[in-house]
Amino acid sequence: MIRHPIELVIEKADTAIVQEDFDALIDIYSDDAILVVKPGMNATGKIQIKKAFEAIAVHFNHTLHVEQAGLKILEAGDTALVIARTVVSAANMPATERNATYVFKKNSNGNWLCQIDNSYGHELLLHEDVR
Amino acid sequence: MIRHPIELVIEKADTAIVQEDFDALIDIYSDDAILVVKPGMNATGKIQIKKAFEAIAVHFNHTLHVEQAGLKILEAGDTALVIARTVVSAANMPATERNATYVFKKNSNGNWLCQIDNSYGHELLLHEDVR
Repeated sequence: MIRHPIELVIEKADTAIVQEDFDALIDIYSDDAILVVKPGMNATGKIQIKKAFEAIAVHFNHTLHVEQAGLKILEAGDTALVIARTVVSAANMPATERNATYVFKKNSNGNWLCQIDNSYGHELLLHEDVR
Repeated sequence: MIRHPIELVIEKADTAIVQEDFDALIDIYSDDAILVVKPGMNATGKIQIKKAFEAIAVHFNHTLHVEQAGLKILEAGDTALVIARTVVSAANMPATERNATYVFKKNSNGNWLCQIDNSYGHELLLHEDVR
């Protein structure tokens, strides 16, 4: 089966997180990307996103593991919505499934970059900054 | 509280669905938008989307009601991800909550248009065309 290029980008990102290769990791984000660090706290742009992942790695004592247990891509023009079941685990956290939502954009070179990274999905609605 | 312009667009869409004003409804979509009609079946572009909403109205015997019980908007550049709790009801269907995901794009006039309309959220992962 031919895999969607976005699947390969997500795979690269998951590997980069596990290997703590943060320079490779931020390559998959657009310049004005947003990462939901935790509900109510966002990082914007490559510098903030890199710092957030460094802090996350420390928080999980450098044992964080991320993988996708299911993935569905809806593509419309140069935009794609990814509906994912993301499994996160670490030495100090049992495997946790998240209903993640990611938005990707295709740039002028034809490469898909992550524009919005919300691994918490609808958990955002449970927090007080709900609009 | 100042409301995000996307909230107003979604409100306009919900009203248009209830009133079956499909010309007003397709105005909120971009030309290459995708609507998930049901898991595994998508409509692409304004013509298909309009036909899909006409069929949905018939299916629900012209009693469909849609409203948002919660909404969170993540904006990055000209792209926004909407995480919503959407309540759908009709004479032949009790009120059903869906964890919906919508992607909006800002056009060159500064107006937000719906690019990807997936009211089923992660339900897509339960169906056989999962990637």
